[in-house]
Amino acid sequence: MKLHPRLAADTGAIGETRDFWLRWMNDRRFPWVIVIPRREGVVAMHELEPGFQRVLMDGVNGCAGCLEEITGADRINVGVLGNQVPQLHVHVVARFRDDPCWPGPVWGNGTPRPYNEGELPSWLQGLREGISDLFR
Amino acid sequence: MKLHPRLAADTGAIGETRDFWLRWMNDRRFPWVIVIPRREGVVAMHELEPGFQRVLMDGVNGCAGCLEEITGADRINVGVLGNQVPQLHVHVVARFRDDPCWPGPVWGNGTPRPYNEGELPSWLQGLREGISDLFR
Repeated sequence: MKLHPRLAADTGAIGETRDFWLRWMNDRRFPWVIVIPRREGVVAMHELEPGFQRVLMDGVNGCAGCLEEITGADRINVGVLGNQVPQLHVHVVARFRDDPCWPGPVWGNGTPRPYNEGELPSWLQGLREGISDLFR
Repeated sequence: MKLHPRLAADTGAIGETRDFWLRWMNDRRFPWVIVIPRREGVVAMHELEPGFQRVLMDGVNGCAGCLEEITGADRINVGVLGNQVPQLHVHVVARFRDDPCWPGPVWGNGTPRPYNEGELPSWLQGLREGISDLFR
């Protein structure tokens, strides 16, 4: 099973496990993590078997709590859309009252600002450390 | 504990249980359900105790599957934002390739189209029947 080409193009690797890919979105406007379960042909969360729904949400909530703690975000937005990319993926986005899309959503709102070539998000190492026990 | 006034104003009742309020959004552009856990002072899903996170997601996924089945939606979008209303609430929205916001998100996109006074969404009864065993 492969990562959808659009997800691969728009994101960088945080890590991967037997059950997930974990990626950072290449948009410096927001600390933004994407959790992609490795399940062939699954579009929506409610299609996953209940046990794996829980594994996925434990991972998503773990990322959300960690991202909030290390970035000091005002809110964490979580979204499952899939209108453009049919491979199931969960967005976890740190939001701030002074960010360029507040209080609107990040999806389809304004223009992404990619990181520089070779640059990594400042929060990436903290996130990796914070969730190391979640993604085994 | 009370429903946030903005949620109360924008939505109608589907039902309530010990753990949730279940509401329909007053916007006829989309079949749109909001699940609001009855937990005082909780803003984000990851703040809930893990057992209740699972109860909540079982309810959300149950609504998502039912809404997909009865409306024939092309996608179900699920979102937890809370940028405007700090009381934790989960959006479950049926999306269609010919809906007015596709493929963008529904939040902050275009103008809501309220139902007529006294009118109920056409899908409401089907949803109530479909999830009757989930929300006890």
